[in-house]
Amino acid sequence: MSKCNDVTEIEMASQTAGKTTGDLRHHPIHHTSSRPQDCARNMFLLVAVVATMTTGCSATDTDIALDAKATLNHRIQSLDLLVFVFLLALTVLTIWLFKHHRVSWLHETGLAVIYGLIVGAIIRYAGNSTPLVHIQVEPQGTPSYSDKLPPDTLWFKYPVNQTNGTKLPEGIKTYAYVFRGQVYDVDENEIDLKATFDPEVFFNIILPPIIFYAGYSLKKKYFFRNLGAILTFAIVGTTLSAFLIGGFMYGCVKLMPKYLSSSFTFLDTLYFGALISPTDPLTILAIFNDLRVDVNLYALVLGESVLNDAVAIVLSGAIQNYGEHYSNTGEFETTAFLRAMSDFFSIFFLSLLIGAAMGCFTALLTKFTRVRDFPLLESALFVLMSYSTFLLAEATELTGVVAVLFCGICQAHYTYNNLSEDSRQRTKQIFELLNFLAENFIFSYIGVSMFTFPKHHFDAGFIITAFICAALGRAVNVYPLSWLLNIRRKPKISSNFQHLLFFAGLRGAMSFALAIRNTVSDARQTMLTATSLIVIFTVIIQGGAANFLLNWLKIPVGVDDETEQLNNYQVHSVYNSMDNSHPQTSDGYLQDVESGGGGRGKMRLSGGGTESNVDTPVDGPNGSLGSTGGSVNGGRRRNSHEKAILARIWGSFDTKYMKPLLTHSRPTLLETLPVCCNPIARLLTTTQQLTQDGSEFRRVDSDSDICIDNDTGNGLSQDGLAGAAVAAGAPLGRRNSLSRMEILEHVQSPVSTRVRLLGFYGKKL
Amino acid sequence: MSKCNDVTEIEMASQTAGKTTGDLRHHPIHHTSSRPQDCARNMFLLVAVVATMTTGCSATDTDIALDAKATLNHRIQSLDLLVFVFLLALTVLTIWLFKHHRVSWLHETGLAVIYGLIVGAIIRYAGNSTPLVHIQVEPQGTPSYSDKLPPDTLWFKYPVNQTNGTKLPEGIKTYAYVFRGQVYDVDENEIDLKATFDPEVFFNIILPPIIFYAGYSLKKKYFFRNLGAILTFAIVGTTLSAFLIGGFMYGCVKLMPKYLSSSFTFLDTLYFGALISPTDPLTILAIFNDLRVDVNLYALVLGESVLNDAVAIVLSGAIQNYGEHYSNTGEFETTAFLRAMSDFFSIFFLSLLIGAAMGCFTALLTKFTRVRDFPLLESALFVLMSYSTFLLAEATELTGVVAVLFCGICQAHYTYNNLSEDSRQRTKQIFELLNFLAENFIFSYIGVSMFTFPKHHFDAGFIITAFICAALGRAVNVYPLSWLLNIRRKPKISSNFQHLLFFAGLRGAMSFALAIRNTVSDARQTMLTATSLIVIFTVIIQGGAANFLLNWLKIPVGVDDETEQLNNYQVHSVYNSMDNSHPQTSDGYLQDVESGGGGRGKMRLSGGGTESNVDTPVDGPNGSLGSTGGSVNGGRRRNSHEKAILARIWGSFDTKYMKPLLTHSRPTLLETLPVCCNPIARLLTTTQQLTQDGSEFRRVDSDSDICIDNDTGNGLSQDGLAGAAVAAGAPLGRRNSLSRMEILEHVQSPVSTRVRLLGFYGKKL
Repeated sequence: MSKCNDVTEIEMASQTAGKTTGDLRHHPIHHTSSRPQDCARNMFLLVAVVATMTTGCSATDTDIALDAKATLNHRIQSLDLLVFVFLLALTVLTIWLFKHHRVSWLHETGLAVIYGLIVGAIIRYAGNSTPLVHIQVEPQGTPSYSDKLPPDTLWFKYPVNQTNGTKLPEGIKTYAYVFRGQVYDVDENEIDLKATFDPEVFFNIILPPIIFYAGYSLKKKYFFRNLGAILTFAIVGTTLSAFLIGGFMYGCVKLMPKYLSSSFTFLDTLYFGALISPTDPLTILAIFNDLRVDVNLYALVLGESVLNDAVAIVLSGAIQNYGEHYSNTGEFETTAFLRAMSDFFSIFFLSLLIGAAMGCFTALLTKFTRVRDFPLLESALFVLMSYSTFLLAEATELTGVVAVLFCGICQAHYTYNNLSEDSRQRTKQIFELLNFLAENFIFSYIGVSMFTFPKHHFDAGFIITAFICAALGRAVNVYPLSWLLNIRRKPKISSNFQHLLFFAGLRGAMSFALAIRNTVSDARQTMLTATSLIVIFTVIIQGGAANFLLNWLKIPVGVDDETEQLNNYQVHSVYNSMDNSHPQTSDGYLQDVESGGGGRGKMRLSGGGTESNVDTPVDGPNGSLGSTGGSVNGGRRRNSHEKAILARIWGSFDTKYMKPLLTHSRPTLLETLPVCCNPIARLLTTTQQLTQDGSEFRRVDSDSDICIDNDTGNGLSQDGLAGAAVAAGAPLGRRNSLSRMEILEHVQSPVSTRVRLLGFYGKKL
Repeated sequence: MSKCNDVTEIEMASQTAGKTTGDLRHHPIHHTSSRPQDCARNMFLLVAVVATMTTGCSATDTDIALDAKATLNHRIQSLDLLVFVFLLALTVLTIWLFKHHRVSWLHETGLAVIYGLIVGAIIRYAGNSTPLVHIQVEPQGTPSYSDKLPPDTLWFKYPVNQTNGTKLPEGIKTYAYVFRGQVYDVDENEIDLKATFDPEVFFNIILPPIIFYAGYSLKKKYFFRNLGAILTFAIVGTTLSAFLIGGFMYGCVKLMPKYLSSSFTFLDTLYFGALISPTDPLTILAIFNDLRVDVNLYALVLGESVLNDAVAIVLSGAIQNYGEHYSNTGEFETTAFLRAMSDFFSIFFLSLLIGAAMGCFTALLTKFTRVRDFPLLESALFVLMSYSTFLLAEATELTGVVAVLFCGICQAHYTYNNLSEDSRQRTKQIFELLNFLAENFIFSYIGVSMFTFPKHHFDAGFIITAFICAALGRAVNVYPLSWLLNIRRKPKISSNFQHLLFFAGLRGAMSFALAIRNTVSDARQTMLTATSLIVIFTVIIQGGAANFLLNWLKIPVGVDDETEQLNNYQVHSVYNSMDNSHPQTSDGYLQDVESGGGGRGKMRLSGGGTESNVDTPVDGPNGSLGSTGGSVNGGRRRNSHEKAILARIWGSFDTKYMKPLLTHSRPTLLETLPVCCNPIARLLTTTQQLTQDGSEFRRVDSDSDICIDNDTGNGLSQDGLAGAAVAAGAPLGRRNSLSRMEILEHVQSPVSTRVRLLGFYGKKL
């Protein structure tokens, strides 16, 4: 243990049970502790004591002292938080400075970690010792314990010298003590008991907004299109990686010195595998955004890194359950394994269901009420519903983080379309800010905790093995699965790209949060230390080196400065193809009118017709990637069966039933449901849906497609609309109010501007 | 006590100190409790127990049971929060419904309270009994206590039947118990110990955003102009009201039955006076917004109701300190009184200073860095700095709420002008949303807690007296001070208006938060109940009846529907006159060009010149008030010495030094500071400040004046600018780049549209 104790060692109270003449031992223990609050506490304690002295001892001394202590605690907590807030403000300012001077060798999260490390070190080595007092209490005279559980509270009678009369008998006060947890390590435990940030804070306060924002800003179209590949990567890849790391670590640990190998079980290493497997979406995202990669690859990697967080948290939960509840020995047992497996799947999919259901419920609320007339109320409703998803999942023993992720996806896919312009912007901005603050807080904390968290256990051998395993796990995730996907995939994932994926596998918030959640045993403490170091290393070194690697791998980077105007989650869409899931040949009522165009911000409609699809392969300054995107598009288009079957089914179902039900989009349910369901369909269709005409469809539809980044496109879309209308020509004029026109354009992308016009000849009723 | 106990009454453990053969009593006590979590807990406990049963007892039973209990607790907390989130969502939806159907007889906060009451009642009467176990521990064999303080933690050895080997001796586990507080009421205390929302939550999480937003959205110009009157109302009025209520209550209480009168000291009733004196800004605001009152009166009342929150919190703190630290007997002592007084003033003004300093520091940060290029970073910095103000004040033993209020005022007055457009909107929207959620949460909680908070003490006599006193206190605040102010004030506060002020004195969040903070004694519990009822009554009945009262008092209400487009904190400015603090006669370099106008949204420039002030008395559909405003304006104008001296000095100092230093406004420090300070002045002046020309000044200046509601005015202000330029005529053309033009227009106010053009002939250097 890394603490310099100038401690009056306590002699262990004799622990024989059943003594009849008990005694209550009172050991005031003075520990050295090195937490942020301690230097402050010391200072304040002095102040408090002095204050107590000078104000005279007329009132009950103990009361005053207690009062002073309570005030003190509050002040220390404030100071604690202040340190972190100050750290965040500093990080923000430095990030600005770096961006201002275009420094690319250090990512902002890396900066947060470094500042955290510095502040942590200062706190650690400038810290003073503070007294923390405890009393050992033993049960005397074999009391009849009816419960398995220890009592919730202890009432402790404490003799004080009272000078003014109260109702209580003189000389005795009763104090309540609340159950906190088991004492494993008799020397160290006080510090843990008072540790400022309960690890659960990460799961209940810090992670939800991060994960929700990830879901909310996921580009849905590309996400659903690549659903099969994403699920493969996320579920298969993460599980594979977890088991591989777990097995390999177990083997390595058994070769290590006795004291270490004996404390690790296979479940421990498996847990480590599960927690170190998920990659952090943040940094990959920033890199890919700079890269201006093909949106499909982007969605794939982003989707994977978002989903593997969800998978990892459920997987680690299942592993823990296996150890705690199902298995007797910790060895492999088939029934226990199957139970854990069913746990894993049921929790994952039930959480998914709750999240999706709450998202859809919000969509219904916003569709069928006119709450959008009051944007503040609407935003409040949106935030409340999203947060209640998390709480609902947690309250029903599911995983709130997973629920909130899928809630975010549904909110973006459906609810967002029903919101007023004001609410769209507000919710986007609020969650963006929350995400930013939460993310930087967690990385600052990782840095600070390296020095101040008392449960670190450094073991060089384990740490080195862990680093190797983390790399191995990522390799297993990237290379074989890429190879597998490349069999079916037309836009092959090039080997350079695979290297990049491997390299971009930073570990982040989720790994740390899982590692710090349980630090009871030596094994867990060793794992926490290794995880912290891996996170710090990958975020600082790999995150910083990413730009150099891009050059080295000769992967072309975005060519013009307009990238900078796009915010984090915006990429230009080289093509979009969700609606291709209805191939024109399969049913007659869909028509694709597509115009490919190029040129800076101005649309050049190079093709258009009611029955033909003209695909102009795009090339621009970003050369190979762009043309890959273009040819993929063409390839896909021509062989619609290549489209992932999952995406096709989902896309069709979504367009026909989900969107008409949950948003104001067309076609309405009146058109898509069988005639017998007409009364119900009418009920679920708003007048807005029925009456909306050409002037309104643009808002609804273009939003549903480019959701998050639609505000940047308003200027252009008008042009696009006009152009498309010209391109569509006669058919447009013939359509009745039921016809649907979908114009998808991407904006601020000079490379490939493309307008597609989809005309739905609604089934006449 | 209002609890239906089906309790196994515990026999009081004999409390004689100094027994040598002690015993440890184990009393599993089954209490009926009626908190939200209990019904849920019961359910979950069953599930947990069943789960424990079915999974076999191979691992240590206690471990599993403990684990299940911990999970359970987490779930219960989630469920608890879920109830409130659900309640808030319901409130939001109903508010929308009410607004949609133009229901005016129930204010939204009233709705939150009513829902809270309903849910509270359901929880209360549907609640089941849940076991909460405690053990009484007595010190045995006179141990030598060296400390005045009880120990921080108790370590309790608990015998369990262990089946698998651990490092600890078989049969004993050590559990840690953390100090929670004194047990006053041996029967009831468990519930308090587990009460979900620590009252401190209100002070540390709920109040800060509300208060910050109040400061941030305060109309600064009118606020500073009426500074003297506001401070009179807030400090003198609140203190007066507190002492009057305190004294009167004390007299009444002493006439009450013995059991009540004996528990109240004068300090208790004084504390009650302090907590019941502050009025809630929220509802007054909504009413006044509907009223479209004269902005000066609006600012006065808003400023008072915001500031009296701050005064009340400091005052109650001083009273508490007086009781706890300074006074021996609780009777009047001159030294103790003086000490408490100095406490009051020093804490108030130091908090104010910290808040203002942090606000100015943020302004400097945003002025001298170009962080505005990255709006997300800028918003984050803004939020972090504002929050750190609260923490800093709390950490230095000052009042965070007061600091955050003045921080908000400074942020709006200075920092806001330096922010990018994006950040302005984002920060405004974020704090608006936070404010909305926090406010509705607190009112929901007031409702729920009426039934679920275990420390209520109903006493009809006290409650009736408290209602009378609350009304009296408000009357003392409104009528005599209005009379006093009317002596010097030209726009007399009419008696109808005074009645309205009296009636609008709703009690709100601050009163409740102060009342629930300390519920140790019977007196405090009685006060909490009375306060809760007063808040509920005033919010529901007075808030709802306000509209009827307006008709009855024949106070004209806003005449057209455009009011609804304004958000809560927007009022139209009948006139603005901050810059009149430089009367034209006193120094030559200021010129007022004012145009009064009327008509719907269109400006009719009815006068203008470089040396003359033409004041067109405004009359419109809102008759008397409008013309009062107009004549005030004229009166003020003609007799500039009537302007509050405080406002004049401050206005001059602010324009000459503070604004040039903290924002990009003109004139720069180069112009206002003496020549000898030029090097420093140059350092503190940005190039943006020096180079900005006529095309940019509008943005900077109009923002600094109408801050929060400037975005609604963009459309009109262009017209205003053009019109004003015409009105100003020749002088405008002659001015060099140092001349300052200030155009203040108010928008969306059809009644009186007025443009003023102030040309500063900057002192040539």
